[in-house]
Amino acid sequence: MEGVLKLLEDGVPLAELSIERIARTAGVGKATIYRRWSGKEELFVEVVRAAEPPDPELPGTSVRDDLVALLEQLRQRGLMTRSSVLLHNVIAQMKSSPKIWDAYHASVVEPRRRKQHAILLRGQENGELRADIDVDVMNDMIFGPMLVRAVMRPDAELPEGLAEQMADAVLEGLRPVSSHTP
Amino acid sequence: MEGVLKLLEDGVPLAELSIERIARTAGVGKATIYRRWSGKEELFVEVVRAAEPPDPELPGTSVRDDLVALLEQLRQRGLMTRSSVLLHNVIAQMKSSPKIWDAYHASVVEPRRRKQHAILLRGQENGELRADIDVDVMNDMIFGPMLVRAVMRPDAELPEGLAEQMADAVLEGLRPVSSHTP
Repeated sequence: MEGVLKLLEDGVPLAELSIERIARTAGVGKATIYRRWSGKEELFVEVVRAAEPPDPELPGTSVRDDLVALLEQLRQRGLMTRSSVLLHNVIAQMKSSPKIWDAYHASVVEPRRRKQHAILLRGQENGELRADIDVDVMNDMIFGPMLVRAVMRPDAELPEGLAEQMADAVLEGLRPVSSHTP
Repeated sequence: MEGVLKLLEDGVPLAELSIERIARTAGVGKATIYRRWSGKEELFVEVVRAAEPPDPELPGTSVRDDLVALLEQLRQRGLMTRSSVLLHNVIAQMKSSPKIWDAYHASVVEPRRRKQHAILLRGQENGELRADIDVDVMNDMIFGPMLVRAVMRPDAELPEGLAEQMADAVLEGLRPVSSHTP
């Protein structure tokens, strides 16, 4: 993995990274790499995952608190992508390579989404969340705003406290509180 | 513009589109094109804009109704991108060309966002929306979920009525209604 990072830091484009070149940089044989990873896609995805903030411990005190923790992770990822040219370039290159993007999706995005779904289902069951909205739609309503800000709008601010504000606002609604209690 | 569409339908990559080639396809001189567009970026952005659903008439009956109209436009764009291979490819190529992406951003995305901001400000002023959340954050909370579904998650469903559901849910909040009135 350090070998991959070194090559990327040296400006080698993703398309030119080969297992052979990675092995040479790391000073090991190709077989050593293939023992752990099935190909350069899997290896590359693990490098990206290691560069991103780790999945947070969920407090479990309430669905709201778990959502805040996951939104905060997303905010941190956005901040890191803004400050790390390397991570920024790696993610951009990943998006332009369908094979690597699919591997990232399957091993990072999908498991993350399943974890989010489980939290939302728990909320619908214990009464913290409305049960009349599809979990998949709810997921996008809760995480979509931070995702857009962190990933699609690199100039948008990501101030401290944004995760809490977004979580509470989507739970309580954007209408003035008085109009909830007419 | 038809000349550009024809070249794109023939599979000519965006990078190989030149004003000269477009002029030849359209059977006009280069000067004719330059009289209307300053370069291929501007011309291309107008082609994309013409292929997307037009900006909707806003009913103006309430901020909620205006938001539904704009969310519905976004849903329609998502449906069109899913069904039109041409539009899908054009948008993908546009994203990988920073110059064209910047032109699209300046002439389509930014004006659209300014229009959204004006609606949200009106809502904060007339009491339809909370005034304690930054308009820019509110914008992402309202449009982010549909944007993620329409653009970033090409496999997600975009059923009829989703615009209304998302608008009402973000306005009323994701907590069960009873917990608003303890």
